[in-house]
Amino acid sequence: MGWSSWERFRCTVDCQRFPDECISDRLFRLTADLLVSEGYAEAGYKYVIIDDCWLSKKRDSKERLQPDPERFPHGMKQLACYIHSKGLKFGIYENCGRTCEGYPESKDHLQLDAQTFADWGVDYVKLDGCFVDINILDRVYPAFGYYLNQTGRPMVYSCSWPYYYMRKGLKTDFKKVSKHCNLWRNYHEIEDSWKRLQEIINWFGENHYKIGKHAGPGHWNDPDMLIIGNYGLSLEQSKTQMAVWAILAAPLIMSNDLCAVSPELKDILLNEEIIAINQDVLGIQGKRVKKEQGISVWVRPITPVRYSHSYAVAFTSNRDYGVPYTYSVGLKEIGLKNRAGYTFKDLYGDEEFILHPHENLTVRINPSGVVFYKASVLV
Amino acid sequence: MGWSSWERFRCTVDCQRFPDECISDRLFRLTADLLVSEGYAEAGYKYVIIDDCWLSKKRDSKERLQPDPERFPHGMKQLACYIHSKGLKFGIYENCGRTCEGYPESKDHLQLDAQTFADWGVDYVKLDGCFVDINILDRVYPAFGYYLNQTGRPMVYSCSWPYYYMRKGLKTDFKKVSKHCNLWRNYHEIEDSWKRLQEIINWFGENHYKIGKHAGPGHWNDPDMLIIGNYGLSLEQSKTQMAVWAILAAPLIMSNDLCAVSPELKDILLNEEIIAINQDVLGIQGKRVKKEQGISVWVRPITPVRYSHSYAVAFTSNRDYGVPYTYSVGLKEIGLKNRAGYTFKDLYGDEEFILHPHENLTVRINPSGVVFYKASVLV
Repeated sequence: MGWSSWERFRCTVDCQRFPDECISDRLFRLTADLLVSEGYAEAGYKYVIIDDCWLSKKRDSKERLQPDPERFPHGMKQLACYIHSKGLKFGIYENCGRTCEGYPESKDHLQLDAQTFADWGVDYVKLDGCFVDINILDRVYPAFGYYLNQTGRPMVYSCSWPYYYMRKGLKTDFKKVSKHCNLWRNYHEIEDSWKRLQEIINWFGENHYKIGKHAGPGHWNDPDMLIIGNYGLSLEQSKTQMAVWAILAAPLIMSNDLCAVSPELKDILLNEEIIAINQDVLGIQGKRVKKEQGISVWVRPITPVRYSHSYAVAFTSNRDYGVPYTYSVGLKEIGLKNRAGYTFKDLYGDEEFILHPHENLTVRINPSGVVFYKASVLV
Repeated sequence: MGWSSWERFRCTVDCQRFPDECISDRLFRLTADLLVSEGYAEAGYKYVIIDDCWLSKKRDSKERLQPDPERFPHGMKQLACYIHSKGLKFGIYENCGRTCEGYPESKDHLQLDAQTFADWGVDYVKLDGCFVDINILDRVYPAFGYYLNQTGRPMVYSCSWPYYYMRKGLKTDFKKVSKHCNLWRNYHEIEDSWKRLQEIINWFGENHYKIGKHAGPGHWNDPDMLIIGNYGLSLEQSKTQMAVWAILAAPLIMSNDLCAVSPELKDILLNEEIIAINQDVLGIQGKRVKKEQGISVWVRPITPVRYSHSYAVAFTSNRDYGVPYTYSVGLKEIGLKNRAGYTFKDLYGDEEFILHPHENLTVRINPSGVVFYKASVLV
């Protein structure tokens, strides 16, 4: 859980014109401050992740990576100290080849770069794969992971490895990926739109059988950043992203302007019960179990387990008619078979009720919205 | 300006299960109350328009249309009285053929139905065109307009006539349509989504040369209802719809649940300066004058006129990258040529400045957002 600069701030490097938005020491200090003061850190969002465009165009005299001297005048070590002093963790971005925005590449300096990051106090590294021969990824990703471990500093390792395979229509060896990486992006990157979010959600719905089993504590499929609080999603759509990310056991990495998140969207990002589902200790990735009439049903096994699992159950909608849609499904049909039944708690409302396996769960789902329950097993 | 039941409430007729949402006397009285108490009426939203699904499945013993007796137990005349007592106007829906949801048709009872509506105190009639041979539309629409006028009661006449032509790929004779109708829907109906809104906006951008000249006081192209306050649009996208509808001199007919509109969306719907542009007395339909880099520039000539027009100028974005986009255009290039220049007032902000024709207007446009100015001519 954390925050990344990419989706919201991209490669804004003109600090003169856009002082509050450029990829700079100031932005990440401010974000660290806000993560704490606005309650995000307490809710679990700990990582402040600098994405592309932080680098100087040249390595230093000892071939080490260095940040752009104007935008990061105090260097990365001091920035890491500041972030750590807030009780937060520090994440950074590099690329096998030239970064997607054209900054220095890592593939010929893997050991040095891993050590540089460790020296700076980095806690999380995202390694991207723009502009390189796809055939080297199978060598570079494991090698960099190896060097990260060699430093002796624990660093979370985020890989874009499977994405570049997917993009070329090639199969990813997820067993291998999950051995070397802690999280990995599987599909196209998110944009600030419901359209792209729908595409991502749909892809994860369709491909569970390929990727689901590789998720577990310490190893996560990554559908990409939370765009809640940006420009493209309605309130309903924001609720949908948060619910599906919880079902998918997805990393919760916001990318937004923490100064500008409206209170009702902040409530979604800070929803304790939903975060608890996302972070459930079992680490089982949920899946889409039904899709019909424009409605998808998602189920994730979670704790508490008493003989059988509890479940998170979400209903999402691709319908865009203005009226909420009534949908009904039998509990058994979606795999909820515990004889004593379940207590259902509406995670975006107050409702609470008990249902048994032979009964139907009937919901009304708003257009592009979601209904999201925690179903706790009864004994 | 007004409110219609269709986009938000559709054909919800189960009042037992959905008492607050079904097409019933109660919904329209409540909406009339809210239009007044929430300030919409004062801002100009006067018409309460009942769309499809109000009818009884059968005409009465004298062949007259009658409302569903259970959902409209007091009849339409009393409902009209109630609406009028609030200082509002009463609108109703019928169809040449069977209504789109299967209720009685009008084509063989045009004179009787026009008189029935007049007797009830109707102020606005929408005549739709589902389920009929397209060849009869050219006869039925003018005939019904004729009978409406014959009643002696002034009624606004809304036609779906051009839409059914467009759908079949046929050319509409807009001169004829504008002679017989006060407003007419040109394109596919709106849905509760940014995707459909983009399609509509794009169509009106592309087809101005066909339709723009037929707009004027009393005769309007209709891009369909405002969906602001529903489930599908973000705040930015809501601002965009309101701005483009103002540029297009489009009827402002909300379709939402007035109980559930959030304060920030209500502010958009009640924005006085934007409504003033929409309602500008010149009644000139604005147009898209440029489209590049995912940005569209829209211009509408408005009052005050001092030697030359003032203008409403909107910049809309189809970009869905998370970062606002900087765009610049010369005033001359978009037709603002008044030598003494213009005072620009940001209609979604406070900024105010003066620019001259040789100067550039530079804006930052949020993803799926809008920047909207009133440019008042200087002398």
